[in-house]
Amino acid sequence: MPSVNSEILARLWAIIPAGGAGTRLWPLSRAAHPKFLHDLTGSGRTLLQATADRLSPLVGQQLLVVTGAAHAAAVRRQLPELNAAQILAEPSPRDSMAAIAWAAAVVERNQPDALVASFAADHVITGEDNFAACVAEAAEVADTGLIVTIGIAPTGPATGFGYLEAGDPIGGFPTARLLRQFVEKPDLATATDYVASGDFQWNAGMFVSRASVLLDQLAEEHPELAAGARALAVSPDALHEIWPGLLKIAIDHAVAEPAAAQARVAMVPGTFGWDDIGDFDFLAGLLDEVDRARVVGDREQVLVADGSAVVVGAGPRMIAVVGLDDVVVVDTGDALLVTTRAAAQDVKGVVDQLRAQGRTDLL
Amino acid sequence: MPSVNSEILARLWAIIPAGGAGTRLWPLSRAAHPKFLHDLTGSGRTLLQATADRLSPLVGQQLLVVTGAAHAAAVRRQLPELNAAQILAEPSPRDSMAAIAWAAAVVERNQPDALVASFAADHVITGEDNFAACVAEAAEVADTGLIVTIGIAPTGPATGFGYLEAGDPIGGFPTARLLRQFVEKPDLATATDYVASGDFQWNAGMFVSRASVLLDQLAEEHPELAAGARALAVSPDALHEIWPGLLKIAIDHAVAEPAAAQARVAMVPGTFGWDDIGDFDFLAGLLDEVDRARVVGDREQVLVADGSAVVVGAGPRMIAVVGLDDVVVVDTGDALLVTTRAAAQDVKGVVDQLRAQGRTDLL
Repeated sequence: MPSVNSEILARLWAIIPAGGAGTRLWPLSRAAHPKFLHDLTGSGRTLLQATADRLSPLVGQQLLVVTGAAHAAAVRRQLPELNAAQILAEPSPRDSMAAIAWAAAVVERNQPDALVASFAADHVITGEDNFAACVAEAAEVADTGLIVTIGIAPTGPATGFGYLEAGDPIGGFPTARLLRQFVEKPDLATATDYVASGDFQWNAGMFVSRASVLLDQLAEEHPELAAGARALAVSPDALHEIWPGLLKIAIDHAVAEPAAAQARVAMVPGTFGWDDIGDFDFLAGLLDEVDRARVVGDREQVLVADGSAVVVGAGPRMIAVVGLDDVVVVDTGDALLVTTRAAAQDVKGVVDQLRAQGRTDLL
Repeated sequence: MPSVNSEILARLWAIIPAGGAGTRLWPLSRAAHPKFLHDLTGSGRTLLQATADRLSPLVGQQLLVVTGAAHAAAVRRQLPELNAAQILAEPSPRDSMAAIAWAAAVVERNQPDALVASFAADHVITGEDNFAACVAEAAEVADTGLIVTIGIAPTGPATGFGYLEAGDPIGGFPTARLLRQFVEKPDLATATDYVASGDFQWNAGMFVSRASVLLDQLAEEHPELAAGARALAVSPDALHEIWPGLLKIAIDHAVAEPAAAQARVAMVPGTFGWDDIGDFDFLAGLLDEVDRARVVGDREQVLVADGSAVVVGAGPRMIAVVGLDDVVVVDTGDALLVTTRAAAQDVKGVVDQLRAQGRTDLL
């Protein structure tokens, strides 16, 4: 842990919005058992648990998880250290702004000068010390009243992510810069220019701010949503009346982009490894290859006689692969997927077809 | 059924040697549950049952099955119409000549002028009337004292089969010809010449002869083996003393080739469809493609979102394929194979590796 301002960290709360279907990870990720509840990488901890583990040195027990009502019990089982008030169960999905605003309002009501930092429940991060240093710097910058986003150092000119353009350095902080703008997913040529310039990072939706700054900024753009979130913090029993009326909008559009246009957003460049495991190809990239196989599960139950394979969910049955390169096999109790790393992003087509066939048992 | 000499057919016995590991059909075919015990094509009858069904119009109940002791109970369950004496259980594998000679000796002892016709338990035949006509003609030719082999009309210049070269026609029979020679598996150029000539057919090991002719011919080449088989017919209780001493040799080498060299072998050209389902590529060729999938099992449990697939053992779990062409997926309870039609003949490599790893539970 790098040296940090412990007074500021003592006021820092982490918010984990735990949602998202992960249809490109079918049949592992299901409506009833989404991506964040899985130990996708075979680490022994689920993505949600790993997210909480990573934040614990920074925030201790000051953590809120916002998740769908259907997943609240599973979240409670996976994070038994949380008390009931730390799991906010959404009656229905209303996108990221409502979820984060609700949690921020709960924090603000308990501690008006608190800071909040939100991190998705289903990202993989390596280099925990670097991550902690970035969050700590972001918290110090945020305490000055800015909204701070933490960038992701790009590993290539990806066209599947939005980008953050860094502006002038902010005096008194080691790496923080003003954010010039959020940029939508670029084409390949633009992305290549971005990466070459050194001034752009990927936007992974990591935000740190004072709770009150976030909600006040939201109140400028969408006053009913900010008021609704603050009302929920005061009257939790009114959840089922208030929630359905909240605006469905992403935090980027609701708060981050308008604030950036007012020069109220800073960016701390990420220096840690990051992956959102968008599909099985990304997952494969996180696994070591041994004897032509990358395996999540029981390595003894995989045999690649010729070619190469990614096997997820190996065991209890033996899975043998002959004569295919980069084939992906995902074995679950009631469903089996066979695809390739190159076709991994087309897996959502299966989910679409199953839905069209009414096979909700498999979604 | 074409007109046949019913007096001759009344003396005809069928012999089904039911052996062979079928390692290229792993994980479907196992040591404990070999190919012939499976309904590979989804017809509702196993290959063994289909073989018996096909012979029944020709021989009625005059049928003997020779199989490994480990499979005798399964054969009895699959062919309940047979009495115990019709299933000959080999204490150990001693190749095809010992199996067929044993059965022929049992037939000869009961009926000295009987004819025997032997057919593998694991071949698929279409065109049952044509098959019956060929066997009936072969029986009439065999009754003259020749050993008769039934050829298979080649569908292409296969290099994986031996060939039969037809010689002069035999007077008095519609299609029978003397056999000029048995030819080992040829190279592609030679096979192409063979097929173009019209004088060559594939050798599928189908033999028809008088029981006494077969055993007498064997006695000329391997007198101990013929004597041993005849002793078994007289003294079935001596099985465990006699059997281990019998020569391990294929019927082609022991009898057919020497007899051919003496112009004692005839050939009836096959006019029926035939397949030995040597691997999953051959099996795929027998299945109809519907919505890019060829399926043995529950079609509703297969979804090909993109590409094409052969799925064997579909159900109970959903099997989804995305972005692979001609992929082969074989799902059994404890083992799953993923390969391609092109690599299907390499599947035996998996069995070799599993054996090397001591995974006898999966062999």
